[in-house]
Amino acid sequence: MAYVHGYDERANERLDDQARTLLELLHADTSYPAGSLVLEAGCGVGAQTVTLAQRSPGARFVSIDVEAESVAAARARVVRAGVSNVELRQADIFDLPFAEGSFDHVFVCFVLEHLAQPVQALEILARVLRPGGTITVIEGDHGSTYFHPDSAAAHEAIQCQVELQHAAGGDSNIGRRVYPVLVEAGFSAVHVRPLMVYVDASRPELVDGFTRKTFTAMIEGVREDAIAAGLIGAERFDEGIRDLYRTAEADGTFSSAFFRGVGERGG
Amino acid sequence: MAYVHGYDERANERLDDQARTLLELLHADTSYPAGSLVLEAGCGVGAQTVTLAQRSPGARFVSIDVEAESVAAARARVVRAGVSNVELRQADIFDLPFAEGSFDHVFVCFVLEHLAQPVQALEILARVLRPGGTITVIEGDHGSTYFHPDSAAAHEAIQCQVELQHAAGGDSNIGRRVYPVLVEAGFSAVHVRPLMVYVDASRPELVDGFTRKTFTAMIEGVREDAIAAGLIGAERFDEGIRDLYRTAEADGTFSSAFFRGVGERGG
Repeated sequence: MAYVHGYDERANERLDDQARTLLELLHADTSYPAGSLVLEAGCGVGAQTVTLAQRSPGARFVSIDVEAESVAAARARVVRAGVSNVELRQADIFDLPFAEGSFDHVFVCFVLEHLAQPVQALEILARVLRPGGTITVIEGDHGSTYFHPDSAAAHEAIQCQVELQHAAGGDSNIGRRVYPVLVEAGFSAVHVRPLMVYVDASRPELVDGFTRKTFTAMIEGVREDAIAAGLIGAERFDEGIRDLYRTAEADGTFSSAFFRGVGERGG
Repeated sequence: MAYVHGYDERANERLDDQARTLLELLHADTSYPAGSLVLEAGCGVGAQTVTLAQRSPGARFVSIDVEAESVAAARARVVRAGVSNVELRQADIFDLPFAEGSFDHVFVCFVLEHLAQPVQALEILARVLRPGGTITVIEGDHGSTYFHPDSAAAHEAIQCQVELQHAAGGDSNIGRRVYPVLVEAGFSAVHVRPLMVYVDASRPELVDGFTRKTFTAMIEGVREDAIAAGLIGAERFDEGIRDLYRTAEADGTFSSAFFRGVGERGG
């Protein structure tokens, strides 16, 4: 039992290390002043929550998610990390239980990609911001992904994820649209910065943590749904996944971009 | 005459401004110590030469190109800019008129994309470097290009440039291969950094200078060759170009990446 427990702990640490590599890139610029109140909208199982809260120890966070199970998982994660400046609540972005102007800042990461109406969601989030408060939006873009050796099968496998997301009402390529959706939602002083993840053999922590265990694992995760939906044959999908793993070898490279936008609520 | 002259000067200044926007990004990290001797291999008409030389006023540059006309144009540009630390020579990378170990540094920008044997070119360039000397390689990657609104026609027009370059023995998508080609050519301590150009309406100098006048103008430039080669129909090509210009409007975005690699000649 002790051994198994020890093994699990090490596995968790390794997963956390991998997540940290990407989180460092995504959140390097995100820190909130002491005393500010921040809404994390769509926290999921809390993948970003602990990092966010630890980077701004003087700020207070309210992290919400629409799924009760996710909120419970996020709460467990926050408790495990010993973070005390986060309050977790189950709540729907489209039916927020907060008064207008309640928050100094809003943080939204990997959420808009799932929404059929991202502009409407941002308009609602704008209302709970005080005038002059800021929103930070971080989204990926699967269409920003390319690699060496190149592979049509790998692009087809990635496209399955894009099409499944699309069928569910979302947009896996929303990263490139962060600027126009923030502008359309009425935010001012909108500034978007690309965060490009580039991986080659000189960056072994990213080869393993990003190319293999984050990106390729995510695409691998849609295998059954993609085949069931008739988007691709099993052999072609598996060829694409093999080719994605191939880019993690010594002479391979892998690139994908995220976009980080900041906007201000007008007065 | 005076008016025409004045007009040309202003046009040239504007072109230089546009080039500078991209050059700043590409060359921000490139400066050589006083007293060092640098080979710029494949200087073309000197688009980078003046920037390079001005950023390292204490270094001396030997800039070569295989085309006599390009060398003459580069020389005129260097003279016009009043730069005195550059010597221009006509020479072929595959038949270099320099002794082994002649240079402290080698600089290669937008050259490998044109070569059928980039690794062989790098091996030759390694020989004229002193042991411990460094090479800097900058290349673009057309496959790194994506935009909003997305457009299949625009991607097809870009692909024409990729296929024409391929037919000429080159690789327009070599940016992602800078790491493996430097390693294969025997360089050590290879480090590659992506340089991503991201454009939205909040960056008007890039909307005009990069999206319109650099990238889209370059693709537009292959129109006749692409149609003559039967790669695309005229209408579809023109639709693609229109869609690229469309990405330069207020709600559009445009992304493309360059790769900057540095390696060291082993002892």
